[in-house]
Amino acid sequence: MPKLAKTAKPNIFYAQSGGVTAVINATACGVIETARKHKAKIGTVYAGRNGIIGALTEDLIDTSKEPAAAIAALRYTPAGAFGSCRYKLKSLEENRAQYERLIEVFAAHNIGYFLYNGGGDSQDTAHKVSQLSHQLGYPLKCIGIPKTVDNDLPITDTCPGFGSVAKYVAVSIREAGLDVASMAATSTKVFIMEVMGRHAGWIAAAGGLAAEKADEAPHIILFPEIPFHEENFLKRVDECVKKFGYCAIVVSEGVRNADGRFLSETGLKDAFGHSQLGGVAPTIAQLIKSKLNYKYHWAVADYLQRAARHIAAKTDVEQAYAVGKAAVEFALAGKDAVMPVIVRKPGKNYRWSIGEVALADVANKEKHMPRNFITKDGFHITTACRNYLQPLISGEDYPPYKNGLPQYVVLKNVAVRKKLKTKFKV
Amino acid sequence: MPKLAKTAKPNIFYAQSGGVTAVINATACGVIETARKHKAKIGTVYAGRNGIIGALTEDLIDTSKEPAAAIAALRYTPAGAFGSCRYKLKSLEENRAQYERLIEVFAAHNIGYFLYNGGGDSQDTAHKVSQLSHQLGYPLKCIGIPKTVDNDLPITDTCPGFGSVAKYVAVSIREAGLDVASMAATSTKVFIMEVMGRHAGWIAAAGGLAAEKADEAPHIILFPEIPFHEENFLKRVDECVKKFGYCAIVVSEGVRNADGRFLSETGLKDAFGHSQLGGVAPTIAQLIKSKLNYKYHWAVADYLQRAARHIAAKTDVEQAYAVGKAAVEFALAGKDAVMPVIVRKPGKNYRWSIGEVALADVANKEKHMPRNFITKDGFHITTACRNYLQPLISGEDYPPYKNGLPQYVVLKNVAVRKKLKTKFKV
Repeated sequence: MPKLAKTAKPNIFYAQSGGVTAVINATACGVIETARKHKAKIGTVYAGRNGIIGALTEDLIDTSKEPAAAIAALRYTPAGAFGSCRYKLKSLEENRAQYERLIEVFAAHNIGYFLYNGGGDSQDTAHKVSQLSHQLGYPLKCIGIPKTVDNDLPITDTCPGFGSVAKYVAVSIREAGLDVASMAATSTKVFIMEVMGRHAGWIAAAGGLAAEKADEAPHIILFPEIPFHEENFLKRVDECVKKFGYCAIVVSEGVRNADGRFLSETGLKDAFGHSQLGGVAPTIAQLIKSKLNYKYHWAVADYLQRAARHIAAKTDVEQAYAVGKAAVEFALAGKDAVMPVIVRKPGKNYRWSIGEVALADVANKEKHMPRNFITKDGFHITTACRNYLQPLISGEDYPPYKNGLPQYVVLKNVAVRKKLKTKFKV
Repeated sequence: MPKLAKTAKPNIFYAQSGGVTAVINATACGVIETARKHKAKIGTVYAGRNGIIGALTEDLIDTSKEPAAAIAALRYTPAGAFGSCRYKLKSLEENRAQYERLIEVFAAHNIGYFLYNGGGDSQDTAHKVSQLSHQLGYPLKCIGIPKTVDNDLPITDTCPGFGSVAKYVAVSIREAGLDVASMAATSTKVFIMEVMGRHAGWIAAAGGLAAEKADEAPHIILFPEIPFHEENFLKRVDECVKKFGYCAIVVSEGVRNADGRFLSETGLKDAFGHSQLGGVAPTIAQLIKSKLNYKYHWAVADYLQRAARHIAAKTDVEQAYAVGKAAVEFALAGKDAVMPVIVRKPGKNYRWSIGEVALADVANKEKHMPRNFITKDGFHITTACRNYLQPLISGEDYPPYKNGLPQYVVLKNVAVRKKLKTKFKV
């Protein structure tokens, strides 16, 4: 049975998982800075190179090699400073060896705390690692840390990463909307901006914040939660152009037809006749051109939206840091199989605090948009949605600039010497 | 022969032309604030509703109805506050009536100064209006004001509007590059960002500023000036993925094959078999997928890039304001058929001043990227290019925010009462 060394202070293993965000490094900053403040109880924070794969392959990064200034710079650096991965561990029954390998590596490096920073899948993994460590009698505290631009984790009021994408989308459609309004007399009448959100419309909904009045962009939002109805949609586009002179649309990549097919798969074909994925905006643009004959422009924000640290929301940055800090504090308090969450306090002015939830309650659950957050006609957000979303994009938190460019940090990412003879194939 | 009223001070007519920018309203701000400082000599600044069309149809906007705070807010508001248009006047020989109509409207509203804010076509128009007013004996001072994100006007060191797009593109590819680097171990290996620039690669080149070291994004830039060579391109992409783990690409919408066809027209077809325009990024992504089988993501920034006032370059904002101010001062000094330009002063540190050029020398000329600004292999920018571009993106000039969103101004745009009985069809 693997054991923690009696003589040394336990180390932390921290890994970033899944799609990265503008503020996941702010969480890493919270983890590392907080751990450094508790040197009496915590050894070193090791990070997984490319997420959990770094643990499986014993490819650990020694964050103690980074000076305080570099760690502080993580607070304003987007993306995953240690690398992330899209790698979902199988179930314990299917591949127990994966979990045992994690424990083997943790034991070899005297890791007493496992902090896993990701979405629903990652919380599930953290939960299973906790269960297996108990079974094996290995003393490990597993703390999940929420992160996802999709905002689809349950229980927590919001997910770090979402607020900054939300701000990017709202700012961008406001700006592009003004542009289209300027051009509409003789040129572009319809503008379509595609945003992320394969299953939930939270990001698209955030675009709606830009429309503080009925005539402001966006005029139409297409949600994955609302089946696309071509006729109603075209009617609404036409009405907007006639009423406001132009029509600005935010469309979620996850919009589906009534038969459940992604709209992005129904339109474009490449030169070989294959469906072109990831382009619902051009599909919609083409539909509008062929049926209404309006001149269009379209944009696909893709990674730009989730990497846009230059326009991150201050609230989001603070919450991302806070969940990292809380994770270390939870671990030190001896908690296990829990995740810090954002709790919205009651009252008119937005205030929040950090709460705690059992991983068993968050693993593999998705939070969709409530129907009452979408207007009856399915094309916009309601006041309830606006009240929920608005505080999440509040505040600016600009990175430092040099020569006109944001000065993001790239860490040295010094590898920890391997201790195991065994290799592990992922 | 139309005449200026002897008793009243002459008014200014100001119009925005062509694609709008993040800072064309800063120019409008410079025009109006400067004119308001010279009340002894200038009556009112009238703006054309939807650009020159507003003059032809006698649809003028009375900017004196806007309070000083609203005019000041133009400095940080993107797009065209009075509306712009894509409407090129025909040649004097082809449609003299258009030019005569302009003079008719100007005379009716006692306009002594015509300030036309646009690119090469607009400078040509301003030049012709000047010529015709001389022929007709109407006392009009015509001043062109440079504006174009394409940076393709001759003589001027740069064009207001370009620096801010350049900054947006450089910041965005830096951020997205960090994102891809995080994901590359198990997921996306190639990221493609499509930017504007139908004929000149200035905007794409600006992306190159983000790569301060060889391993930093973007690794490849595709310019309209360099014919696309599929084999060389794929080879370079593969090299980057093998060397750096990923490959970030900035591609200009205007990239062409060796036979001169836009690459964006060679790939995707819509459901009806028509070519899908405006999507060179997905075309390239598909090529990489089919030939190299790398997982890709792509973004098309489209209007987001030229409307992105939230990340405008301070230098660009200052220059945009300065050319507006200079245009009024030129007019007051009795100059005619000239355009203010940005002059780069010699020396290591970037300093600039306002110069002056005859419209005859700028009309209908395009400034392409010099070949020595592009590396020999055609895939990146040289140090000479970097030295030219870098100062143009320098400085930040953030708009004010409220509730997490930039507070851009929307003017009242009160119409001036029509004085002419005649209508004019555009």
